[in-house]
Amino acid sequence: MDNVVRIDRDKRGAPSPLDVLTELTKTDMQRVNQVIMTRMQSPVALIPQLAGHLIASGGKRLRPMLTLATAALCGYSGERHIPLAACIEFLHSATLLHDDVVDESRLRRGNDTANVLWGNQASVLVGDFLFSRAFQVMTDDGSLDVLRLLSGTSAVLAEGEVLQLITTNDVDTSEDSYLQVISAKTAVLFAAACQIGAIVANRPKPEEEALESFGRNLGIAFQLADDALDYSAKQATLGKSVGDDFREGKITLPVILAYRRSDAEQRNFWRRTLEHVENQREGDLEHAIGLMTEYDTLADTLTRARHYGAMAKDALRLFAPSPMRDALTGIVDFTIDRAF
Amino acid sequence: MDNVVRIDRDKRGAPSPLDVLTELTKTDMQRVNQVIMTRMQSPVALIPQLAGHLIASGGKRLRPMLTLATAALCGYSGERHIPLAACIEFLHSATLLHDDVVDESRLRRGNDTANVLWGNQASVLVGDFLFSRAFQVMTDDGSLDVLRLLSGTSAVLAEGEVLQLITTNDVDTSEDSYLQVISAKTAVLFAAACQIGAIVANRPKPEEEALESFGRNLGIAFQLADDALDYSAKQATLGKSVGDDFREGKITLPVILAYRRSDAEQRNFWRRTLEHVENQREGDLEHAIGLMTEYDTLADTLTRARHYGAMAKDALRLFAPSPMRDALTGIVDFTIDRAF
Repeated sequence: MDNVVRIDRDKRGAPSPLDVLTELTKTDMQRVNQVIMTRMQSPVALIPQLAGHLIASGGKRLRPMLTLATAALCGYSGERHIPLAACIEFLHSATLLHDDVVDESRLRRGNDTANVLWGNQASVLVGDFLFSRAFQVMTDDGSLDVLRLLSGTSAVLAEGEVLQLITTNDVDTSEDSYLQVISAKTAVLFAAACQIGAIVANRPKPEEEALESFGRNLGIAFQLADDALDYSAKQATLGKSVGDDFREGKITLPVILAYRRSDAEQRNFWRRTLEHVENQREGDLEHAIGLMTEYDTLADTLTRARHYGAMAKDALRLFAPSPMRDALTGIVDFTIDRAF
Repeated sequence: MDNVVRIDRDKRGAPSPLDVLTELTKTDMQRVNQVIMTRMQSPVALIPQLAGHLIASGGKRLRPMLTLATAALCGYSGERHIPLAACIEFLHSATLLHDDVVDESRLRRGNDTANVLWGNQASVLVGDFLFSRAFQVMTDDGSLDVLRLLSGTSAVLAEGEVLQLITTNDVDTSEDSYLQVISAKTAVLFAAACQIGAIVANRPKPEEEALESFGRNLGIAFQLADDALDYSAKQATLGKSVGDDFREGKITLPVILAYRRSDAEQRNFWRRTLEHVENQREGDLEHAIGLMTEYDTLADTLTRARHYGAMAKDALRLFAPSPMRDALTGIVDFTIDRAF
């Protein structure tokens, strides 16, 4: 955690929006971490070992932080947001474990992935465990509204992952299809994380909808920035490797735009490298980034991200100004700007 | 379905206990099938394709049938058992999809597995979808008791699968550990399927506990018989291959007993073939079956199964005699005897 905060601090040394939000939710987050540690236990020792490797690996905990922040924004003074924020992190972690198996990823947050250390089989099954645990924690909370929201969310998450699998290696994927994929695989969980803040605080429908919209648009902006970041030199400074999506043949917006703007010969390059990633040769990634630069597709991806970010920020204006509202507004720009 | 019933019919042509139970739950089961077909739909066409391949592949639907039968045994006249039986089948199907990935299975019920036809990645993700869908259907039902039961059940299922993964290739696995594995990976879902019958009918705790005990003991007997069946010539007549567990290095009771009863040289055989399955040679399976026959371990596994079966049948005696009680009692012996 410390590490992430240090990296994110801007050049003038002022606290980043993530620092501010982290600070505002700090006490609650300690309690969320406590719930996470307690509820990931199992008599089967491999489960907390494997789950703990992922969960303790220095993620920002952005999604549960959003639940805590939106509950506070809604003036909530109860306890329910704590275990529900842990649920959000469990659902997210289960998805990451399965994602890394599906993508055959070897590194996450600069560490070996669980599938590298313990094998695909254990990763699939521990993902199932965390998923089940999330529903146990929700049931303990006892709200059918939350159960309806999160069971629906996790069905859409799975649909999004399948959609992404289908579009992998398909350079003809349209921007619309891509938006559908990232709405399903990323934005719904952000949306649910934020919506829960209003649900526990029992706020009127328009506020719940505003927070759902904030989370959804923030999630889309986040994913667009992530997809641009994958091709950016900045990536290396975050302990990640550049070009993972390219090597896996993942079709993200920087590629979709580059393909559409390419001439016939350049399109052949995209087809050769992305439809059959085993045909990639040394220098292909550099050439791909060269084309993205020539056609401005990384910058344009971030421009698209700003469009969704603007909607996210406007959705928040339903709420009275407060330090928490400012922090949530700040996190939108932060999410997009980290890609530079 | 027809096919299964035909095979199970006994030599005198009398209907088997499975036929009887199938007939008694037939109308309800048609409605369960309708719910399954409706709720496995998704705008992502691959999901119902892949899920449908497994779900329509001629399984006996024994678990949802138990929910229907126990609800009827409890005199339930409402509608809730229909979608909840579908939930049980969804949870079971999600587990099967993930199991086949974990075990690298290539055949199930005589058909290519989903992971062979669509790949491991799609099987993992569609399993996640079915799992999520099960919780959506439970939430629609709206009973926190059922949600608590089934979220706990699915956490234990995942624990059981991880335990099994850990004991694979370990010939020193004890009978106790093995019982723990099959209690978690098989018996809890049978138990929950039966317990739901009492929950929806709002029956007193002792009846709920009796049905839980019936299901749990039936589940253990079922798994023991399954593990014996894997080494039995009968297996081939059911469209399955003999010795899958041996080839995968799975440590089941027939092997555990044989290893314990073997002399030093025979133990070396078990270690060579099961600790490193890649060392298996032509004739090893036949030699293994020879040792199991010499030490009576297949017959003794079934004797153990009968012990649990007897407990299952006695648990049912809390209920007044009825054709449904007879059918459920009959299914216990049927489950064990199918291994001959």
